[in-house]
Order: sequence, then C-alpha cells, then structure tokens
Amino acid sequence: MPQARLLPAYLVQRYHGWKATTYQDNKSWYRRLAASGQHPRAMVISCCDSRVHVTSIFGADEGEFFIHRNVANLVPPYTPDGQTHGTSAAVEYAVTSLGVAHIVVLGHSNCGGVKGCLDMCSGEAPELLETSSFVGRWMDILRPGYERVKDVDAAFRARALEKQSVLVSIDNLMTFPFVAKAVEEESLTLHGLWTDVGEGGLEQFDPVRGEFLPV
Amino acid sequence: MPQARLLPAYLVQRYHGWKATTYQDNKSWYRRLAASGQHPRAMVISCCDSRVHVTSIFGADEGEFFIHRNVANLVPPYTPDGQTHGTSAAVEYAVTSLGVAHIVVLGHSNCGGVKGCLDMCSGEAPELLETSSFVGRWMDILRPGYERVKDVDAAFRARALEKQSVLVSIDNLMTFPFVAKAVEEESLTLHGLWTDVGEGGLEQFDPVRGEFLPV
Amino acid sequence: MPQARLLPAYLVQRYHGWKATTYQDNKSWYRRLAASGQHPRAMVISCCDSRVHVTSIFGADEGEFFIHRNVANLVPPYTPDGQTHGTSAAVEYAVTSLGVAHIVVLGHSNCGGVKGCLDMCSGEAPELLETSSFVGRWMDILRPGYERVKDVDAAFRARALEKQSVLVSIDNLMTFPFVAKAVEEESLTLHGLWTDVGEGGLEQFDPVRGEFLPV
Amino acid sequence: MPQARLLPAYLVQRYHGWKATTYQDNKSWYRRLAASGQHPRAMVISCCDSRVHVTSIFGADEGEFFIHRNVANLVPPYTPDGQTHGTSAAVEYAVTSLGVAHIVVLGHSNCGGVKGCLDMCSGEAPELLETSSFVGRWMDILRPGYERVKDVDAAFRARALEKQSVLVSIDNLMTFPFVAKAVEEESLTLHGLWTDVGEGGLEQFDPVRGEFLPV
Repeated sequence: MPQARLLPAYLVQRYHGWKATTYQDNKSWYRRLAASGQHPRAMVISCCDSRVHVTSIFGADEGEFFIHRNVANLVPPYTPDGQTHGTSAAVEYAVTSLGVAHIVVLGHSNCGGVKGCLDMCSGEAPELLETSSFVGRWMDILRPGYERVKDVDAAFRARALEKQSVLVSIDNLMTFPFVAKAVEEESLTLHGLWTDVGEGGLEQFDPVRGEFLPV
Repeated sequence: MPQARLLPAYLVQRYHGWKATTYQDNKSWYRRLAASGQHPRAMVISCCDSRVHVTSIFGADEGEFFIHRNVANLVPPYTPDGQTHGTSAAVEYAVTSLGVAHIVVLGHSNCGGVKGCLDMCSGEAPELLETSSFVGRWMDILRPGYERVKDVDAAFRARALEKQSVLVSIDNLMTFPFVAKAVEEESLTLHGLWTDVGEGGLEQFDPVRGEFLPV
Repeated sequence: MPQARLLPAYLVQRYHGWKATTYQDNKSWYRRLAASGQHPRAMVISCCDSRVHVTSIFGADEGEFFIHRNVANLVPPYTPDGQTHGTSAAVEYAVTSLGVAHIVVLGHSNCGGVKGCLDMCSGEAPELLETSSFVGRWMDILRPGYERVKDVDAAFRARALEKQSVLVSIDNLMTFPFVAKAVEEESLTLHGLWTDVGEGGLEQFDPVRGEFLPV
Repeated sequence: MPQARLLPAYLVQRYHGWKATTYQDNKSWYRRLAASGQHPRAMVISCCDSRVHVTSIFGADEGEFFIHRNVANLVPPYTPDGQTHGTSAAVEYAVTSLGVAHIVVLGHSNCGGVKGCLDMCSGEAPELLETSSFVGRWMDILRPGYERVKDVDAAFRARALEKQSVLVSIDNLMTFPFVAKAVEEESLTLHGLWTDVGEGGLEQFDPVRGEFLPV
C-alpha cells in the first residue's frame, strides 16, 4: 500500500474555497478544455523555485501554457539512448503532439540550483561531485555555461550563470531534430527570459545585441 | 549565438500590466522572498498539461510550493547511476536542501501522457516503442501501473491509469533513501491526488481504504 | 466590375510595417492558428465605435476572442423567420460551432447609437422613426430598455440606457434555445460590461446586487 | 434579472494591468476622444473570426476605424423593409453620421462561414438549408458569389469564395443610395481586401485588372 497520507487540512479548505468560487466562475471554460482538449500557444520551461510564477507574470489562465518546471530551467542535449529523460519527453510532447508556437525558457534571480553549480564548479561543494548526487549530475548540464562566466567578477557571477542557464537550454533545444526542424520551418520560436524575483524585473535575450535587456 | 527571438508583444504588454499592479501590490513580500530565500511548505509534482494549475486549486501564492512539472507527474525509481535525472534532482533538492514538509503528487483527468502509455502498452502506438521516443521511454515508468489496470473495463481504464501514475510515483519516491528516511522520521509526508479538469473535482488516495476518494 | 479602389498609401505602409515586425514575431502562432483552427475562449459583442478596443482592454491576442461588433452592441430577440440576421448568425456560430465558454456584451460611454435611440424615443429624432432608417429600426431593439430608464434624470439617462443596451442584449441572448441550453448546462456563461471610454473605467453587471459595479 | 455572471478573474487582472499601463500612457487621447467624439477615417467590415485583427494589421489605434464584424464580412443588399438589419445600420451610421472616407471590406483565409456556404451550396450541409439556421440564411447573401466560383477547381474553391465574399459585399454596398451617392461625389471610396491568416499576406482587389493582387 503506498505510503500516502491524507491532505493537510489547510489545503483541503483552500481547495473547497477554490471550488466554490474560481471553479464556479470558470466552469464552462474548464469543461470545454476537458471536452475539446488543450491548445496551448506556448511551452514554458521554468525553475521549480516557489518564487517563480510564470502564469502570474503573464496574466495567463488555464489552457494557455504547457509548463515544464525543473531545477534551474535546464534542457539537456538531445540523447536518444532509450533511458528516461523527463525534460526531453516534455519538449517532444509539446512540439510534436501539441505543436506549440513558442518555447519560453525562464530563468530567475536567487536560483539555488545555479548557486549549487557555481559552488560545485569552483570546488566549494564536493558533495555535488558525487555520482549519487542527482542535483550535481543535473547541474552538469550547465557546465558549458560556467566555462563562459568563470572569469566574471564574483559579485556578478551567479547572475551571469543564471542567464547562461537560459542560453545553454536554448542551445540544447536546438540539438533536438524536431525542434530544429520546427524552428527552421518557422512554426516554432525560442525565447530566453530572466526575471528578478524581488524587483519584478524581466529581461529577454536580444539575439542582435547578444545580451539580456529589459523587456 | 542562441536561436532566441524577442518576446511576442502581447506577452510584453501583459507583463507590464502585471508589473504595474500585482507586483506593486506584493512588492514587499517578493523583496523579502528574494532577500531571505524560499521556505516552501510543500513540493508539488504535477503534469505539464496547460489545464492543470496547482497554484490556482490551492489558492497558493509565490513562495508556498516548490513545483516540479513533467509529463504525467511521474517519479522514476531511485537510480544513482551518475546520469542526468531531472525529476530525481528536483526531489533531492526539495527534501535535502529545502526540507519541505509534504510532497504532493497531483494527477489529472484527460492526461495525454497517460493516454499514450495506454496506447503503447496495448499495442496501438508502435511509434512510442522506439528507442528514440522520449515520451515512450518516459512513460515506461508507468508500466507497473498498466499491469495493475489492464483488465479494468476499457471505459474506465484511462482514469484508473491516471490514478496509477500517482501511486507509482509515490511508490518510487519511497525508493529514494532520503525520502524514506524523512518519512520514517516524520519530517515529511507524501500525498496522492487526482483532479478532474472539467468538473473541478479533487480526489485523494486514502491509505486506509486503499482507494481514491473525494477530498 | 466592383466599384473598389486601391488601398490608401498610409494603410499600405502600415501593413508592410506590421508584416516586417509583428507578423515575423508571431508567425509561428499565426501559422498554427491557420493550420489547426481557432479555439477562442469567449465571444465578445461590442459596439462598432472606433474608441472601443476590446482586445486592448483585456490584453488579448489573435485567437482569444470571437468578436462581433454592431451598432450599440445589441442582440435582437430570437426570430427564426428565414430572414438574414447577422448578429443571430454570429451568436449561433460562436455557441454551436465554436463552443465558446463565455459571451461578453461590452457597452460603452458616449455611444452614438444609444444617443440616437434616446432622441428617437423622446421625439427628438423623427428621421429615425422612418421605415427606411436602418439605425432607427436597429435601435428599436433597445426600446424595452428605454422604457426602464425614461424617468431617470436627464443628466444620467444616456448612461443608464447604455447599460440597458447590455442588459437587453443579455435578456435577448437567453431567448435563443441553444444559448439557454448551454447556460443551463453550465457550458456557457454570459457577462455584461460597460466601459468609460475617457476614464478607462470598467463596470460589470452584478446579478446579486442587480446593478453595474466597478470591476 | 439578467442571467449575467461576474467576469472570470483572469480578465479582471488583465484589465487592471491595461488600466495601469496602456490607459495611463494614452489617457489624454482617450479623454479627448470622449470629449470631442470619434472622427474615424475609415469603416472596416471584417469577419468575427478570432484570428483576424484588423487593428493589428494596420497598426490602428483607438479612434481610427469604425469596425463592424460579422460572419464572413458580408453586407446584404439594400432592403429598407422596416426590419432589423444590423449591418445596414452600421453602414448607414458610418456613412451618414460619421462621414467616413473609406469602407474597407476585409476577407480572410480559413473562413468557417465561407466554408459553411460552400458546403451548403454543394449539398453537403443540409442543416444549413433549414429556415431556422441563422448561419445558413446569413450565408445566402453569398450565393451569387458561389455561382461564380462553383466550377473552380475544388482545391481553390474555398479561397475563391472567400474573395467573392468581399466582392459581393462591395456590390451590395453600392445598392445603398447613400453609399452610391457618396462614392459618386467622391467623398467615399470602397476597398476590397483578403488576408492570409497564416502567412500574413494581404491582397487587394485591383479594379483595373479585375483580380486580387498582393498589396
């Protein structure tokens, strides 16, 4: 028997509140979403961090974004080796089954995963180097980004690496044949964003200037 | 240079609207979240599906939930093989770094990933059996669940498998030593939920009765 | 040969500007909308008035709203007499073919059509009473609303009648069997709004209080 | 009491975002529009289809276009029979009250209304032939256009009929005495356009060549 427990009362109460209000106000839309399927315009790949709410920033409601969230909003390179790759599965489903028009990679300030990568690569977090460290092996994906920022002034290095987490993911997305093909055919566009959790800022990677600039 | 494009104008406008209203209303809280770090009470593992908004159902705001979203809300078994495991990294970070008190696995109706698993296991989706199918290899995680529901009446099989996606994930969570230890020490509880997208229903796995019952 | 002329140069120039910028930024989305069809969440019925931009107020982009615009945002009563009824056709298409979840009727301040109705009903615009007056006969739809506000102080009467144009339309919408059925089945909701063009205000009809209140 | 419901929360939030940004940026203009009335240069008649945003294509802002939208951008023939004719009322108001300089009829690709007309006229949609079908009776306006394209190769017939929906409307506009008079006096010009939703193309009817050509 699974080791599950009943839900804490505070969540039960909040659910009943939502059911009696928001659900009632949107019932017709939710029913149509159930009956005729989802048609999200974009996939958003963001961090699991509790301070990042992609739907809030964009005023998005149920049905608009197909959302994958993992530690540090990373996409690994294309590796069709028959192993389980959750992020690659999400990207494949979004592009080949749903046909999303955009993939938005959203990085953020104060990212704990990126901080761990920085510590690991600079020798300050030996535990993350262990084979058994899932966070360490996951953050290995960001190593090419670390190489590009390791000489940045220490005060700005974490932020620079947070932005690299977005750029490395976009580079890796392009290694997926179905992503590259859709981008080539102009049925898909990729977008790189970074948000400042405390100040509510939003920067986007500008491919002409080659840097992140405020939206 | 990454293949990124500037953000579509409608998202830029919506962002500026959010910045001028919701952000202003919550600035002091967001600044404190940035300054003193996140302290989420729970981790939520849900599907990427655009119709599932866990924060909405639970009236949750920035800072409350550490959220991992992947196809069909699956957790693979503990496999410390030095490869990249995004879901395992998220669980490790939530439990060992953030010390969340709860992990909530949230399944849902009309799940396209579960539907794919059903088709694959019953021989109707040979393309998902290919080595190169990321969705297929990801849904392999749910095969033990399929074995348990394959004789269920066809009309109810998808729903039964959606609930198995929750139970298999909880079973797999317990294979992670740090999860089992935290559950043992009663510093962590696991919860299995399933939501009906159209009707707004919410069921939780009741470990005493051994079935999902309405919350 | 139709009496058409080539487009004025200022519109040609603006179109080319749009094609080179906004279209390029959204090409992948527009292509998907063309390939997989529209799935708008709501129908909006608003006035033709050039000062009312429903998409702007709601930050809506292509694909979100099915929009019918006529003089004074009116819906006539259900009259299946085999004649041409453009508004009824739009409502029928939205509800029975597209399955929209909401119909939003949006009235506005400074409405010339409503002003004409007021003048006509109070005897100050005899030309609108003529059989050949299309505006007059169209504004006849609002006569039940005029009856309800004719004793309102003159300074507030136009505004009161603008709000009646919303309420009469909602009443008339409910005379369409397919609308009433969808509302009954909770697959469709109706909403009454009134916007102040100059002040940017937005009021909604509150069915509990029986009046329009600021959103 | 009207069967109205309060607005879904996502639209309320988006409205407040617009009010705090776009409205503030344009307040002086919106106030002048309210105070001194609208003076739109053109009337645009387009389809209700959510994928067609005439203001976007022409970079138009509040105050520029008096916009009528109905199914398949149709104008019925002049029929002053004392019945309600919403499209005719809109045309009458635009020409005789506002004195617009142009009427632009904008057709589009992938038009569901035109597709319905094609099916109806070719015997594949008997339900549209019923007296009670508002869409069917509305699309009867386009029957003269169907006669002109019925022998076109099936692969191109829908597109040909979409363009006929523009030409039939322009022909019908000329049956309105006040339109014909204004055109005669050169205080009004008529324009026929067709836009390709997916490719962002725009074609205009060229009266010299007698065909639609790219703008």
